[in-house]
Amino acid sequence: MKLTFIKPVYAHCDLPCGVYDPAQAKIEAQSLKAILEKYDGLDEHNKTRAIIIKEERAELVKRHLMVLWADYFKPEHLEKYPDLHDKFWKAIKQASEVKHHLEVEEANKLLKMIDEIADIFWQTKKA
Amino acid sequence: MKLTFIKPVYAHCDLPCGVYDPAQAKIEAQSLKAILEKYDGLDEHNKTRAIIIKEERAELVKRHLMVLWADYFKPEHLEKYPDLHDKFWKAIKQASEVKHHLEVEEANKLLKMIDEIADIFWQTKKA
Amino acid sequence: MKLTFIKPVYAHCDLPCGVYDPAQAKIEAQSLKAILEKYDGLDEHNKTRAIIIKEERAELVKRHLMVLWADYFKPEHLEKYPDLHDKFWKAIKQASEVKHHLEVEEANKLLKMIDEIADIFWQTKKA
Amino acid sequence: MKLTFIKPVYAHCDLPCGVYDPAQAKIEAQSLKAILEKYDGLDEHNKTRAIIIKEERAELVKRHLMVLWADYFKPEHLEKYPDLHDKFWKAIKQASEVKHHLEVEEANKLLKMIDEIADIFWQTKKA
Amino acid sequence: MKLTFIKPVYAHCDLPCGVYDPAQAKIEAQSLKAILEKYDGLDEHNKTRAIIIKEERAELVKRHLMVLWADYFKPEHLEKYPDLHDKFWKAIKQASEVKHHLEVEEANKLLKMIDEIADIFWQTKKA
Amino acid sequence: MKLTFIKPVYAHCDLPCGVYDPAQAKIEAQSLKAILEKYDGLDEHNKTRAIIIKEERAELVKRHLMVLWADYFKPEHLEKYPDLHDKFWKAIKQASEVKHHLEVEEANKLLKMIDEIADIFWQTKKA
Repeated sequence: MKLTFIKPVYAHCDLPCGVYDPAQAKIEAQSLKAILEKYDGLDEHNKTRAIIIKEERAELVKRHLMVLWADYFKPEHLEKYPDLHDKFWKAIKQASEVKHHLEVEEANKLLKMIDEIADIFWQTKKA
Repeated sequence: MKLTFIKPVYAHCDLPCGVYDPAQAKIEAQSLKAILEKYDGLDEHNKTRAIIIKEERAELVKRHLMVLWADYFKPEHLEKYPDLHDKFWKAIKQASEVKHHLEVEEANKLLKMIDEIADIFWQTKKA
Repeated sequence: MKLTFIKPVYAHCDLPCGVYDPAQAKIEAQSLKAILEKYDGLDEHNKTRAIIIKEERAELVKRHLMVLWADYFKPEHLEKYPDLHDKFWKAIKQASEVKHHLEVEEANKLLKMIDEIADIFWQTKKA
Repeated sequence: MKLTFIKPVYAHCDLPCGVYDPAQAKIEAQSLKAILEKYDGLDEHNKTRAIIIKEERAELVKRHLMVLWADYFKPEHLEKYPDLHDKFWKAIKQASEVKHHLEVEEANKLLKMIDEIADIFWQTKKA
Repeated sequence: MKLTFIKPVYAHCDLPCGVYDPAQAKIEAQSLKAILEKYDGLDEHNKTRAIIIKEERAELVKRHLMVLWADYFKPEHLEKYPDLHDKFWKAIKQASEVKHHLEVEEANKLLKMIDEIADIFWQTKKA
Repeated sequence: MKLTFIKPVYAHCDLPCGVYDPAQAKIEAQSLKAILEKYDGLDEHNKTRAIIIKEERAELVKRHLMVLWADYFKPEHLEKYPDLHDKFWKAIKQASEVKHHLEVEEANKLLKMIDEIADIFWQTKKA
């Protein structure tokens, strides 16, 4: 159950500290999904709040993905995963779509894209 | 290996979206540890950068812990874990210690405190 | 009238500089109260703006209180004021309530809680 | 002793909420003074931290003063206090001086300038 | 067409680096105008988003103008342009007006005021 | 001379407002160059300040580039400029190099990369 503490966790700072984890983007995207799932049930005041928070969280997803893309990945990874640039570009664009829309489906698409990136990330960590 | 994607992840927004995860504080604390481990090997310019980044990351630990403490935990949790307040207080104070010092040991203490909090967190999620 | 300049003022930085003042949290809470008092009289556009600003100001209250709690107060204060943790926890939770609601009463409750904390703060400064 | 709670406090948000207080700038300037007074006694690591924090706090002084100048003061105040623009301009420039230098005297000058502005502010509140 | 790259560009940091450019404020003000022009055609969800973004962009205009006013301009400029303080004061107040209103005209007024300031700025650079 | 005001300026917000301009990244990169050119002549205190400010400005370059890449550029641009992803990736990585180093040459490389991106940007605006 305490898997978080058995496996190493990865984050980022541009020292660089060498610590990265796609979970940072995923956690914010999970939050986006939860916000959109609750949206219809909220009163007007909290609907406005949900939109404010959705903007912030989607922006965080974009930033976490940018850090992972530009700071963690190296030319050798690109050789092995030639569509890496495109995967990040589309995932970051999808985070903007979640800003622009209210459908839960947009957050689901984003989560799927982050999972694909995370899959590649973990493969490069194993290599 | 892709444990992150098997288990649900938890984050926060004060909608509240109901998504929380102590991993957010832990990732930043792991980064603090990595920064301090690298510190002695850095040149003067990057030593200064390390201190700048250490301030930021330690501040993030403090904020993530505050969110978890004040937004996730409820009175019923406190009844079951009466030293919860004190655990958070000391962990947040320890993040300040990491700001004030350069010893890796300070980051290790912080990580241990976050793990104890995470342990309680996951027990409450199981309950 | 210029009492602010006769009495010393207290703020925070985590150097630590030793300068703290519960007025920082109170000023933001006063702003929350003023926003809620004006809310009903605003047009739709400014109602939305009021909610945006209320989120920001309530977040500032939470951060100022966290700083005071974790950085200023020491174990000896806790011995003398054993419910200090709980007072801060409830005040920070009340700041979230002001985010979630539009009633002026929520801001009044928050102000009262900050005043109680400030009361303890000033007693410790006298001691 | 609890003067803060007897007298009304004034802050800002650009709703506008009508709540302002020069104490916000003063608290940060007091912190700058405390940082500079402690500077010589700090080790190298904490000297670097002091400079980081000094940048932040001086920036906050500049922002709080800008808000007061541009949001609170009205044309009728300028008629009565024709050097108001210049007082703010010089105080904000002095906050930059505190960034550029390490002498406590620079913080003292800044505090004096803020007190003069606060004096005018409180006169306009009485009027 | 690539005029941006033929002429030198000017920005700010309070080192000071000596690099300033009124274009920073203008770009944000252009964005405000574009937001207001699109506003009526947006759905409710995106109207709320537009207001959120308008707050942020107007705040950036205020900050960029403050930096230019307090950091770039020197006493000798004031002697030559005695209404400089007042021009900045009114432009920053106009940025607040754009926050408070939805009319494109408010953004146009702001752009005109920024252009007048930029005009003076470029004259001082030629001098 | 007032070219800034003759030609339209382009910035960003993720409404989207449709206003973009690579000048935002360039202005910050110019500042980085100016900081590095002044670095050797600074005293110890201001050398530390220069490093703090260099971190901030390089981070701004990274963010402005990310916005341009992910928000402005569309699939049809990529077809015409197939190395667009790679140009942005390398420019953002170069901004990190400016964080890691003190040589003016690193800022010059960054400026050249931003100019190449801006060149493509302006070609797409003409099309």
